[in-house]
Amino acid sequence: MADIYERSLKQHEAWQGKISTESKAVLATKDDLSLAYSPGVAAPCLAIEKVPHDAYKYTWKGNTVAVISDGSAVLGLGDIGAQASLPVMEGKCVLFKQFGGVNAVPIVLDTQDTEEIIRTVKLLAPTFGGINLEDISAPRCVEIETRLKEELDIPVFHDDQHGTAIVVTAGLINALKLVGKRAEDCTVVVSGVGAAGSSCIRMMLQLGIKRIYGFNSKGILNKKHADTYTNPLYQDLAEITNPDGEDLSLVEAVAKSDIFLGVSMPGILTPEMTRSMKDNAIVFALANPEPEINYDLAREAGARIVATGRSDFPNQVNNVLAFPGLFRGALDVQASKITDEMKMAAAVGLAAMIPENELAEERIIPGPFEPGVADTVAKAVSEMAVAQGLSRI
Amino acid sequence: MADIYERSLKQHEAWQGKISTESKAVLATKDDLSLAYSPGVAAPCLAIEKVPHDAYKYTWKGNTVAVISDGSAVLGLGDIGAQASLPVMEGKCVLFKQFGGVNAVPIVLDTQDTEEIIRTVKLLAPTFGGINLEDISAPRCVEIETRLKEELDIPVFHDDQHGTAIVVTAGLINALKLVGKRAEDCTVVVSGVGAAGSSCIRMMLQLGIKRIYGFNSKGILNKKHADTYTNPLYQDLAEITNPDGEDLSLVEAVAKSDIFLGVSMPGILTPEMTRSMKDNAIVFALANPEPEINYDLAREAGARIVATGRSDFPNQVNNVLAFPGLFRGALDVQASKITDEMKMAAAVGLAAMIPENELAEERIIPGPFEPGVADTVAKAVSEMAVAQGLSRI
Repeated sequence: MADIYERSLKQHEAWQGKISTESKAVLATKDDLSLAYSPGVAAPCLAIEKVPHDAYKYTWKGNTVAVISDGSAVLGLGDIGAQASLPVMEGKCVLFKQFGGVNAVPIVLDTQDTEEIIRTVKLLAPTFGGINLEDISAPRCVEIETRLKEELDIPVFHDDQHGTAIVVTAGLINALKLVGKRAEDCTVVVSGVGAAGSSCIRMMLQLGIKRIYGFNSKGILNKKHADTYTNPLYQDLAEITNPDGEDLSLVEAVAKSDIFLGVSMPGILTPEMTRSMKDNAIVFALANPEPEINYDLAREAGARIVATGRSDFPNQVNNVLAFPGLFRGALDVQASKITDEMKMAAAVGLAAMIPENELAEERIIPGPFEPGVADTVAKAVSEMAVAQGLSRI
Repeated sequence: MADIYERSLKQHEAWQGKISTESKAVLATKDDLSLAYSPGVAAPCLAIEKVPHDAYKYTWKGNTVAVISDGSAVLGLGDIGAQASLPVMEGKCVLFKQFGGVNAVPIVLDTQDTEEIIRTVKLLAPTFGGINLEDISAPRCVEIETRLKEELDIPVFHDDQHGTAIVVTAGLINALKLVGKRAEDCTVVVSGVGAAGSSCIRMMLQLGIKRIYGFNSKGILNKKHADTYTNPLYQDLAEITNPDGEDLSLVEAVAKSDIFLGVSMPGILTPEMTRSMKDNAIVFALANPEPEINYDLAREAGARIVATGRSDFPNQVNNVLAFPGLFRGALDVQASKITDEMKMAAAVGLAAMIPENELAEERIIPGPFEPGVADTVAKAVSEMAVAQGLSRI
């Protein structure tokens, strides 16, 4: 692993920025200048002043998102601050462009105050057709996204929450198909109930799963103890998980479960615990780079289907499968927001990319470089947006 | 003129954005992905966390500026608001890239509150190596720029003020050379003492001019009446202009002057007034698209040298001669700010582009498409920054 860091540092020095802005308007003559700038540019300005939505027609707004972070929860690095998070945001912008054809601008904010982040994003929103929030720590990320969704008329999406959840849901749909279980019959343990875990739980409920046990580092979420939680996220999740208010240890809960989803820490799922799961167990061990249980270890311990966040094992849960196509689809129809239904459509579309005859333990989700991923997701998302009356074209 | 607006509108619809973001990192393999994004990207992140200035080494910061407006004073259109100003800001970004090789991102802000603009720009500054303020109305633009210069460690530049002033100063240097007058012997009328006028006045004083009469729509600025001015800009300018506290009409002041600079309104300088000026009169009539006096009319009325903002007459005062090279030079040495001396160096460098044997009434400043303009300005600016100890490379 040391090698990749050394090479990456050198390569970043060579790039001096992984993205650039480029001009689509070529200025070779005075006339070109008059068309693109003064005096001609007054015409689109006045058109937009009259009909603000015409910004989609005459500017880059309709194909451009801001990738915004406060640097508070960057990759596995934690709170490294705004300036240090810029390489990650640039990388995200590269992915937006390469996989979705979406212009993306990194914006790192020198504040971690919830209200100030909300206000700042609102103020700069006219420039953009969508807002991708990135690497903002929980539970602030939930409030920031919720408020911005209410207060802006463009899609706002916190990828750490929902990007992961969409890909997990796609994988689950295919995994359940493969093992022949119905969602409503399954019991699930979710280890890690932060940004990603909470969105996964919500999508699993949407999928029809009835019994989910959520665990933070202190133990199981239980509505009986909700008044002791200072984190509002835990209070909310306690209401929708653990329907019978059971006080179980992680070991006990895993032994009752069909599915384990880890978005927590390395090694938390032992082979013994895996062995205790129900038949045809499904394990998503997404801690990165070291998962809750290694792929091979989990398979040896009897898990029928295993997915991790790593590219060197099958079934990599990689957000890049979701967000470029998701925004591509939302922007294509100038959607005013991204709904739960649009996220689910993305997951269903992604799952359907693996034809039944290809479906296998080692192939429940496509790889990031497989052709057609973003187009498929975009199509599913834009069709759902149209069906929901959210298209503005 | 109607034709240009119609063609521009159509062309803007075809462009759907005059700029785009592009990826410099090509992702074709899993290894590419590991270098540009997770896990490799952790290396530059940690390097920057340790040494924040390394953002210049590992990200696009060192070659990227934000073009920021609140849409309050856009071209000749006035207060059309943030969304409607976006086509102008995109155009500015095109110019930054084409002429200076600088990445530029338009950011239009949905507020016209001075404090909120200052705060917002400060919060998003870590992303950028420089801030170009654009089309913000006076006198707020002066306070916003002044405060941001104090509070940020990257160049902050309000182009409407200083871009015009640099090109005017370059033109004046050559015009004075041509007519054989010394700056300190000249009397100047400045009609229009807003953003551009005030910066022109300051640069002319820096150049050695002693007697400047500044006029707003109500008359001459005079320190004797300074307590009646509600605009702080007028109070400041009254202190440094009109040294003898004369109460003159515009007609009277023009008759005493060698130089007329108009950044005000069409037709304010009549042929009669021009005829009353001192010998070898110099007229800069920069109201756009209709100048204070037409080029031909001014020449016929005896002005020896005339400059306007129009591309269809000689001596076009066009900001694009200044800002791309200015930022190019400042970014090349990672300057922490743009000083008065750097602006003057830009003006002197720009003036020197016209060799003595080419200098003529119809050629006091280069045209925007002449090769070497931005490079010349950049070199002059970066050398001055180094001399002032402001280089950080």
